[in-house]
Amino acid sequence: MADPLRHHGDVEARGAELDFAVNVYDGPRPPWLDAALLASLSDVGTYPSADRAQAAVAAHHGRPLTEALVTAGAAEAFTLVARLRAWRRPVVVHPQFTEPHAALEQAGHTVTPVILPPPFELTAAAVPDDADLVVVGNPTNPTGVLHPAAAVRALLRPGRLVVVDEAFMDCVPGEPESLAPERLPGLLVIRSLTKHWGIPGIRAGYVIGDPDVITGLARTQTPWSIATTAAAAIEACLSPHAQHEAHRRARTIEDWRHHLEQGLTHLGIPHLPSSASFVLAQPGTGVHERLRARGIAVRRADTFPGLDGTWVRVAVRPREMTDHLLTALRG
Amino acid sequence: MADPLRHHGDVEARGAELDFAVNVYDGPRPPWLDAALLASLSDVGTYPSADRAQAAVAAHHGRPLTEALVTAGAAEAFTLVARLRAWRRPVVVHPQFTEPHAALEQAGHTVTPVILPPPFELTAAAVPDDADLVVVGNPTNPTGVLHPAAAVRALLRPGRLVVVDEAFMDCVPGEPESLAPERLPGLLVIRSLTKHWGIPGIRAGYVIGDPDVITGLARTQTPWSIATTAAAAIEACLSPHAQHEAHRRARTIEDWRHHLEQGLTHLGIPHLPSSASFVLAQPGTGVHERLRARGIAVRRADTFPGLDGTWVRVAVRPREMTDHLLTALRG
Repeated sequence: MADPLRHHGDVEARGAELDFAVNVYDGPRPPWLDAALLASLSDVGTYPSADRAQAAVAAHHGRPLTEALVTAGAAEAFTLVARLRAWRRPVVVHPQFTEPHAALEQAGHTVTPVILPPPFELTAAAVPDDADLVVVGNPTNPTGVLHPAAAVRALLRPGRLVVVDEAFMDCVPGEPESLAPERLPGLLVIRSLTKHWGIPGIRAGYVIGDPDVITGLARTQTPWSIATTAAAAIEACLSPHAQHEAHRRARTIEDWRHHLEQGLTHLGIPHLPSSASFVLAQPGTGVHERLRARGIAVRRADTFPGLDGTWVRVAVRPREMTDHLLTALRG
Repeated sequence: MADPLRHHGDVEARGAELDFAVNVYDGPRPPWLDAALLASLSDVGTYPSADRAQAAVAAHHGRPLTEALVTAGAAEAFTLVARLRAWRRPVVVHPQFTEPHAALEQAGHTVTPVILPPPFELTAAAVPDDADLVVVGNPTNPTGVLHPAAAVRALLRPGRLVVVDEAFMDCVPGEPESLAPERLPGLLVIRSLTKHWGIPGIRAGYVIGDPDVITGLARTQTPWSIATTAAAAIEACLSPHAQHEAHRRARTIEDWRHHLEQGLTHLGIPHLPSSASFVLAQPGTGVHERLRARGIAVRRADTFPGLDGTWVRVAVRPREMTDHLLTALRG
């Protein structure tokens, strides 16, 4: 593994019979999304425009256009944030998705990691006072912990940018702890459409927040960076029409997750209560490898700062598929 | 116009009845390319991998994998080059496509422009000795000038990176002046699949060259930056199967271009001999606006350093469409 911060579930899933490593919703894409992707192929003969996608983002979150920017996945957003300023003391709150940390290092910054101890609950006191950038995930990958909006809000202060990676917030029915609706200076929310809608191959994400920050990010973005298919996907997934299905998916994830959590409890395997489409479990060392030998990929967790080889991250899957995993864990 | 360097033909084409502003091949996409794009939609449920596309690039140019990198269009390549090093004296040879210049400024560099006088032929003497980065287009957008490979090669020297934007090289049958086949230290060739194959909405490009430079560029690239559709397009357009069609397109462009050039000559409108899919003409001030008033978009050229409002860039189009333009120019 070249760089543990750049290790991701997609690599672990390769060649596995059962994939519990990648956090993508495990159901068919809605027909209207497939139709939008297909229709977008008719438009690839002209340069892509993100205007309609941007309007859809702004409308969905009730924001003016100046407070929204579409990005080629959340990954591009992390790069843009890393390159936004000569950060003096960028802080990443771990354990969390490692890409923001890696993107900051890639841009030449030295990151101060703040490592929360189990049960991985966020406290403003854990973050150094002089941090001018704080990146936190909510709900957090890989812990599944949903921080109260107030705990994230408490990180805000003059001269600091707080970036909340809400890539999995659409797993939370009603999104009560999302900061996307809040117009606060120094706050930036990153969202992804990849996981909930099963389209990681289409690079579709966006940011919403402080208009000064949005302007700065737009200024560093590569032109035409949102491909035609991505723009079409963003527009489709944020249409009012899509919201019913989005909510239904969140409820399905809840149901599937409860089944997984109950199974783990039954087997006596410690795990954290999760609000996301994955569960962080602590079955002990060697389980990752033993499952892999049986064709089952779970996500190793020792590449996340703050975790070790006793933990694994398990993607939420349909009940029958989860039963296969639980049987293997029993054996 | 916010930034003249960021003005492009796609904006001018909007709402025009006849588009001579965008340099994209004006014919139907090959059925095998449409089929590849369509098939790629079946794979968007997994994270994108650029491995096969990269292998296709390397194989096409007879290079090892370490000398090829796929990018989200040439635009991403310009961003990666701009961010590769703390350039001391980056030079952009104008008139040329302005994105490399804009990308360098966006990354915080101060660009030294070298402005060639008509007929815009490249000489190594025009470039300051201490330039550590030189960007040149070949054939050059918007002049259409094809520099001899030797003239570009003469720019190479120790401690300097020479970047050749060959985005329109596939217009030149046989590509005799391409530096893509040459393995030289400090040389990087940027290619695009957007124009020749009519897929600007799919962000598909790549770079080939010095393996140390390729490694550096890969290190600054955002993960998953090549979407599934782009990877599929790159693979399809560089397959041996596609080469016959690529050559046929180059011949068609030649034919269409000769028709346009003959018409301009007939009308007494000065223009440069072009090797690309556009012609730089000098019909005088006001022609751009007069054509636009008749629903015809040509590309204004005054946003290119070294040119002024007397010039326009005219995209090569099928003969009948060109006749409409020639008629309007006569009127």
